[in-house]
Amino acid sequence: MARDEAASGSQEADNAGNEQDAQEAVVLSIDAMGGDLGPTAVVDGLAEALKQPAAADLRFLLHGPEAALRPLLVKRPTLSTRVELRDCEATVAMGDRPTDALRRGRESSMWRCLDSVASGEAAAAVSLGNTGALMAMSMVRLRLAPGIGRSAIAAHWPSQNPAGFNVVLDMGADIRAEARNLFDYALMGAEYARLTLDVEKPRVALLNIGAEDAKGRPEIAEAADRLKDAADQDAAGFSYVGFIEGDKIASSAADVIVTDGFTGNVALKTAEGTARLIGGFLRQAFQDSWRGRIAALFAYGPLRAFKLRIDPRRVNGGVFLGLNGVVVKSHGAADGVGVASAVALAARLGRERIADRIVRQVAKLASDQDDPQIES
Amino acid sequence: MARDEAASGSQEADNAGNEQDAQEAVVLSIDAMGGDLGPTAVVDGLAEALKQPAAADLRFLLHGPEAALRPLLVKRPTLSTRVELRDCEATVAMGDRPTDALRRGRESSMWRCLDSVASGEAAAAVSLGNTGALMAMSMVRLRLAPGIGRSAIAAHWPSQNPAGFNVVLDMGADIRAEARNLFDYALMGAEYARLTLDVEKPRVALLNIGAEDAKGRPEIAEAADRLKDAADQDAAGFSYVGFIEGDKIASSAADVIVTDGFTGNVALKTAEGTARLIGGFLRQAFQDSWRGRIAALFAYGPLRAFKLRIDPRRVNGGVFLGLNGVVVKSHGAADGVGVASAVALAARLGRERIADRIVRQVAKLASDQDDPQIES
Repeated sequence: MARDEAASGSQEADNAGNEQDAQEAVVLSIDAMGGDLGPTAVVDGLAEALKQPAAADLRFLLHGPEAALRPLLVKRPTLSTRVELRDCEATVAMGDRPTDALRRGRESSMWRCLDSVASGEAAAAVSLGNTGALMAMSMVRLRLAPGIGRSAIAAHWPSQNPAGFNVVLDMGADIRAEARNLFDYALMGAEYARLTLDVEKPRVALLNIGAEDAKGRPEIAEAADRLKDAADQDAAGFSYVGFIEGDKIASSAADVIVTDGFTGNVALKTAEGTARLIGGFLRQAFQDSWRGRIAALFAYGPLRAFKLRIDPRRVNGGVFLGLNGVVVKSHGAADGVGVASAVALAARLGRERIADRIVRQVAKLASDQDDPQIES
Repeated sequence: MARDEAASGSQEADNAGNEQDAQEAVVLSIDAMGGDLGPTAVVDGLAEALKQPAAADLRFLLHGPEAALRPLLVKRPTLSTRVELRDCEATVAMGDRPTDALRRGRESSMWRCLDSVASGEAAAAVSLGNTGALMAMSMVRLRLAPGIGRSAIAAHWPSQNPAGFNVVLDMGADIRAEARNLFDYALMGAEYARLTLDVEKPRVALLNIGAEDAKGRPEIAEAADRLKDAADQDAAGFSYVGFIEGDKIASSAADVIVTDGFTGNVALKTAEGTARLIGGFLRQAFQDSWRGRIAALFAYGPLRAFKLRIDPRRVNGGVFLGLNGVVVKSHGAADGVGVASAVALAARLGRERIADRIVRQVAKLASDQDDPQIES
């Protein structure tokens, strides 16, 4: 049904290379299952997302058990013309191991959700489910994009930049990264920052344990050389600002911070744990006197707002880059507002065809780098 | 001079295996140079340290230019009988590269400071100088202890444990770690935690990107197997509690968190950066209204206290473990209070002969592991 009604959607300015009805609409594929709050939060999120003026072109393919979803949709008349329900019974549970989910989950809402992107029906996928399973299924169903050696999870990290966030990747798609992987992450992260942080020429940095050139692991030094060379080309579309240490991830020194998935994941979790510890210390300190308790009332709001900001999955979702299609992983605990935020992000990335942009960029820089350079 | 007067110091209960006059005194070797505030902060720190009741047994060898140090000592009569000045002109600067410091710095206060530990004159060294140079010189002058494959920098990390801190290592002595290195770090960290956090049987955890057994890098999985085996022995003196993620470093889930030096350094710096960002957000939020400004007055204290706590180098110093002698690296910006704190830590580690304890522990577990095990 949504496919026909999509014709009434707003016109897209940039739809070159588009093979189906996304000429008129941006279709997002949504996994209704797998979130902590169940499909209610997802349906709430879709309704919430449609309230935005920019959402006039959005249509949804909603994957999950019709018996559970139909009653929720009936209560939301605004969704009736915008959501096409795709019935499927099976779901991937939070505790499922990725390998098991891959073996048994081909009939699941998660797999079907990715299917719609792989087939070209939808421009992007959104799921609240099991990250490991989603990553494994995305790899198998969407496959690596041409020219990309390894996919990555990118996240928005609260920072002192004007946009309020930096892009950090990889957040844990893989446990190691060679120089060429870090180079690809940089290109992917630059495209992601350009589209979501509104920076024309993102500044890329490599995470390292010293700002000096001589320090750190050899693969990082090699990635630095490649990024320097690439950034010198006008076509690069990004600048390379060198190594930064962990204390500068949240600064305004760079827009894109590149690291391997192990380090990125540890850094993200450490930041979360630090925020929690500070919150605890403050609460403790504030409880010691009546004046402290009054101050705590004032401090509670900003601290809570920060904790929501520090966990990018909770607000914007992590994004799987480097595949034939883009997947937004929303936090499992997301409520309607969180889901709406992930949907808005997916809409932007789908509308702007980030997956195609990354492939073009990688191809362009790869061919430039293959050219013989007449330099010392 | 200090050597003679040391005879009047308090008697040490546990001085078995001690070869010189530390029977009566604990002698610490102090590098007077290399701190941001110059030798004044160091001399202030020594005087401050001696105010503690536990410091009655302390004597210092103070390395640096006599012309600069003598006037400072004259102003501190309490130091006259406790400090032996060891004149040397050269210093290692903050910007010196470790390799250059090693080549040219054999006459420096830093090298001489380590010399006194290597020769057995002093029980531990304290320096505020260039970390890279100090680590390189420590490796060359003190060398790896028998049975230890790689040294590590251990730090106290603010946590929800009763002691207020956990031990985390390696903080950046090396950029990689194999399974056997992680195993050694665990043993060294357990000894450090036992002596400084007052836990009889420290709980050791490995930092990883998932709590499940199947995740993470292979060397971590192998280290986990070795630690499980070792902890099962009564003689181990520690328990192994499994993998933890970055958000649990500051929790009460473990006393010792083991990781490679690259990841540990990134985690530490990320925690520092997060604390700074939260501070900025809070200030911003508090500036928005007069009520906010009042709250800020109350929040300032705890937040500042936390920032001092979150940077272990600022308070306690990082500690180089795994060498023939122990070295405490105090933060370069430390003032007298900071130096006194590093001195107190060095005194405790020297008094308890942590370097010897680690060697004994490694030897014991190595021989136990070599025994044929009659198990399935």
